[in-house]
Amino acid sequence: MASEAIVELAKRRGFFFGSNGAYGGTAGFYTFGPQGAALKKNVEDAWRDRFTIREGNREIEAPTIMPEAVFEASGHLEGFDDMLVECGECGESHRADHLVEAVTEIEDAEALPGDEVEDLIADNDIACPSCGTPLAGESVEDFNLMFATDIGPGDGQPGYLRPETAQGIFVEFPRLKEYARGNLPFGITQIGPAYRNEISPRGGLLRLREFTQAELEQFIDPEADEPPLDRVRDVSVRLYPATEQEADEGEYVETTVGEAVDEGIIGSPWVGYYLGVAKEWYDRVGVDLDRFRFRQHLAGERAHYASDCWDAESEVDGDWIEIAGFSYRADYDLSKHGEYGDDAFTVFKRYDEPKTVERATVDPDMSVLGPEFGGDAAAVAEALETLAERDPGAFDGETVSVEVGEGDGAETHEVDADVANFSVETVTENGEHLTPHVVEPSFGVGRTVQTLLAHAYSEDEVDGEERTYLSLAPEVAPQDAAVFPLVTNDERLTELADRVAADLREAGLAVAYDDSGSIGRRYRRQDEIGTPFCVTIDRDGIEGDGDETVTVRERDSAAQVRVPAGKLAEELVALRGGGEFDALVDRYETVATDVETN
Amino acid sequence: MASEAIVELAKRRGFFFGSNGAYGGTAGFYTFGPQGAALKKNVEDAWRDRFTIREGNREIEAPTIMPEAVFEASGHLEGFDDMLVECGECGESHRADHLVEAVTEIEDAEALPGDEVEDLIADNDIACPSCGTPLAGESVEDFNLMFATDIGPGDGQPGYLRPETAQGIFVEFPRLKEYARGNLPFGITQIGPAYRNEISPRGGLLRLREFTQAELEQFIDPEADEPPLDRVRDVSVRLYPATEQEADEGEYVETTVGEAVDEGIIGSPWVGYYLGVAKEWYDRVGVDLDRFRFRQHLAGERAHYASDCWDAESEVDGDWIEIAGFSYRADYDLSKHGEYGDDAFTVFKRYDEPKTVERATVDPDMSVLGPEFGGDAAAVAEALETLAERDPGAFDGETVSVEVGEGDGAETHEVDADVANFSVETVTENGEHLTPHVVEPSFGVGRTVQTLLAHAYSEDEVDGEERTYLSLAPEVAPQDAAVFPLVTNDERLTELADRVAADLREAGLAVAYDDSGSIGRRYRRQDEIGTPFCVTIDRDGIEGDGDETVTVRERDSAAQVRVPAGKLAEELVALRGGGEFDALVDRYETVATDVETN
Repeated sequence: MASEAIVELAKRRGFFFGSNGAYGGTAGFYTFGPQGAALKKNVEDAWRDRFTIREGNREIEAPTIMPEAVFEASGHLEGFDDMLVECGECGESHRADHLVEAVTEIEDAEALPGDEVEDLIADNDIACPSCGTPLAGESVEDFNLMFATDIGPGDGQPGYLRPETAQGIFVEFPRLKEYARGNLPFGITQIGPAYRNEISPRGGLLRLREFTQAELEQFIDPEADEPPLDRVRDVSVRLYPATEQEADEGEYVETTVGEAVDEGIIGSPWVGYYLGVAKEWYDRVGVDLDRFRFRQHLAGERAHYASDCWDAESEVDGDWIEIAGFSYRADYDLSKHGEYGDDAFTVFKRYDEPKTVERATVDPDMSVLGPEFGGDAAAVAEALETLAERDPGAFDGETVSVEVGEGDGAETHEVDADVANFSVETVTENGEHLTPHVVEPSFGVGRTVQTLLAHAYSEDEVDGEERTYLSLAPEVAPQDAAVFPLVTNDERLTELADRVAADLREAGLAVAYDDSGSIGRRYRRQDEIGTPFCVTIDRDGIEGDGDETVTVRERDSAAQVRVPAGKLAEELVALRGGGEFDALVDRYETVATDVETN
Repeated sequence: MASEAIVELAKRRGFFFGSNGAYGGTAGFYTFGPQGAALKKNVEDAWRDRFTIREGNREIEAPTIMPEAVFEASGHLEGFDDMLVECGECGESHRADHLVEAVTEIEDAEALPGDEVEDLIADNDIACPSCGTPLAGESVEDFNLMFATDIGPGDGQPGYLRPETAQGIFVEFPRLKEYARGNLPFGITQIGPAYRNEISPRGGLLRLREFTQAELEQFIDPEADEPPLDRVRDVSVRLYPATEQEADEGEYVETTVGEAVDEGIIGSPWVGYYLGVAKEWYDRVGVDLDRFRFRQHLAGERAHYASDCWDAESEVDGDWIEIAGFSYRADYDLSKHGEYGDDAFTVFKRYDEPKTVERATVDPDMSVLGPEFGGDAAAVAEALETLAERDPGAFDGETVSVEVGEGDGAETHEVDADVANFSVETVTENGEHLTPHVVEPSFGVGRTVQTLLAHAYSEDEVDGEERTYLSLAPEVAPQDAAVFPLVTNDERLTELADRVAADLREAGLAVAYDDSGSIGRRYRRQDEIGTPFCVTIDRDGIEGDGDETVTVRERDSAAQVRVPAGKLAEELVALRGGGEFDALVDRYETVATDVETN
């Protein structure tokens, strides 16, 4: 596996590297260099195109700092913890559950209570990975993963960096629904940074403290809204359902989205729809589908409110890594904010026809209840109201029993039915307030980038020389093209090269310009960053009688054609948009590839 | 001025609004709704196109959290403060300098010492703006504007949210220069969030606690590198130099970039170059150039290291607001990181020809110095070395005087010249280590968005009805087009409308689809968010013998033409790219505008 080679290449060629190297580095933070930032941005744009624009969804941009109240509601303040054990000797912090998993058969130690994990550390003689001191006796603590800060001076309020972009959408639902004019279904997307103060960040882009998410919150009426499943019904998917994971010799289920939904392997048609869309999108941006699967969450893995959860996983270095999650979150998020927040996290669902419903009410005569029940009178009246809604039949007799107070202080009172003034009214209702359900496709952008690099990394031999190249899809490659004047001491060549580079930039292409070293060496540099097309300006191109021409070399095949300079921008724009290089080979003169090593 | 109207429209139509409304709001944080996020993203893309791609610069993406050491070096830890005064009665925090400026003639109270500001508060009987209690006697404190957090658990380190994106570039200079293969000049850009924990955030997007910057750090060799000034020499600019601001009746200087540089009004040709590029860019994205100027910093405004600073300012609501800054920062940033960081923040500048230089050295005989000077011997030897570099002539006599120790402990020693073993060597140097200078154009993205909305906001009358519309440039408008089926009860129309919308999205256009309410009302909705083109599918378009047609209405003129459905995507893509609607009027049948109000 090429992991170390990729990390080395990523650093050397400007894809990504650990941040703040001059200050000793900061674990969990990576900087995307020029190539990586361009690749990442292209991935984001491709995601936006597919999940926002083409779906007719809308994107928002919310702040990354949010006040504490939001995370009280979302549950992150209380429960967004990892298990921390600190070495008493060297002070290093470790994930206690990971230490236990590494030396036992336990696969999900995080689900265990802290004291049980403490016992497992002692029983298994687990030592500090940094200094070797036994960790037996050290306490295992819950460590909240949110980065905390203070908003405003002095009388400021506690705030946190959002652990997921989703909260910035949920919390603004009352306003977002207005933009949708109250109509379900609608989808809101967001691409941006999220933060988790990981105890033990991993190398590369896999577990960072600051990372980029692309999330879609699809708000639906669970009883009425259906996804446009036909669009992806025939998309083939490799599924790894929970049942297969739990079986002794579990196998992938190779099927189509339509069949998987029909057979109930995928529980929610909405989840199925987005798995299909995602599969096609991953193909488009260059994920190797032989190293890709959808894995269903095991029962213990998913949140209590989530009824159907699947991860998109890619194989990188022999490990399967989660690169996206798809979950049916029901009404959990909006209900919580409805409970904690001071606004309506519902939509008004108008009935096709107004409904006539009977509604039982009471109007207790307080001039009777007051003297009879004294301090309990108000509670008795309230209990009568609740009872009328719940069990109108209770008012059929001459007296009604209601219970007031709680626990030991609870007392049952008998009330004269007449005093309750019970009645049943017929009312017309035009609709109801509905808390929408949420379907959430959530993508890790950095992990997608890492996957694309791993899957694009290739080695071969050209003209007898070994080379490394990244076979990135033209849509996401950091540079669209590179322009090389063959030599720098001929002004005719450099002038044309400058003109060609300017033309291509004018056409919106990202262009590298390189005039140093042999052409072979310049090709190698571009191969290593995955530039799909290299344009060389040579004397043959300017010395003939006809139009000026340049050579265009395709990265993977190293095949070359000679193209009129005036046609170049148009041809490269078409190739970036998904055109085939073979079409150029058919139309233009090909060039012997030994030019390449001169 | 239309400020309140714009804020109301921004909220109602989904441009931006104060965040976390359901939790009482969080001062200084705004969420961009669907229209605002799209407008903002288009502004960022237009900036990237101009300042990164077309300039041949490279973009990076660094984390927003950075460790404390970075801000020790940059000076933010020590000096990034505002003057805070807290009300002893209600606890509200205020900018002390702003309070003083509001009631005195003082324009830059921030430059005064804290105790002087305390006196001014007392002398002017300044009261708390929130509760009216006098603030006399309250202390004025320096409040650091960086948001602080802790990185990692337990033994973690202090970190801060970056107050400017620039530090993420400077701190990685040692690596970035490698990607440029050590050659100056090169430019690195970054677009992303920055954070300032403002004491008193202002409304709208003007002074937020979290905001987006687009910054370019241009690294140059100050002695060798020249900008391509000819490209913008003839660009006209309205300048407001410091001298004019200080004059009694100061006037704008209306000139060109070339003349302003030639005459020394703009001190640095690099700053001049970027003012020219910026002026053209602002024009392109839709800033009203009659409400735009470049204002030079007054001597007291600019940082001590910055030799030439200009702000781009736009007029919004009668106030001039800073929307970008252009400064010549010399070697300040890289020198500081070179001093604090453990890496080389220099480039090796190779001479055209190796240089032969004479270098004076000493090799003091310690067997003599030791007995003679005892504990001072090492210091004497070091002083001899320093002296040899500084003043080789000092070794011409029989003895050499050197001073060791500091302050009261300083002592002068006479050393026998022979003992110093002074010699002059001739060495060949191939180049020198140079700390590049930095030219920094720094743009506020939110403030640009706010300017575009203010300058695009228009009211007129169409067909006898008043309307509000945003005349946004097609390149930045949130929606490229809107598609309306005239009625929803004719499947032929809705089917074609669906097809047209899908076609346009396929062509990469952001398309709104609206089938509710009268056509006139739908036009008004799109006018208010600045959608440049509305496409209506009506019966005339499907009932003739020829191709299906649709009507296209241009926002500002409300003029309409009938276009074949098959040509629509191509035409709209051309219009988005800067094409003129008049060309369609010439080529296609026009439609009477009274259709609009049916």
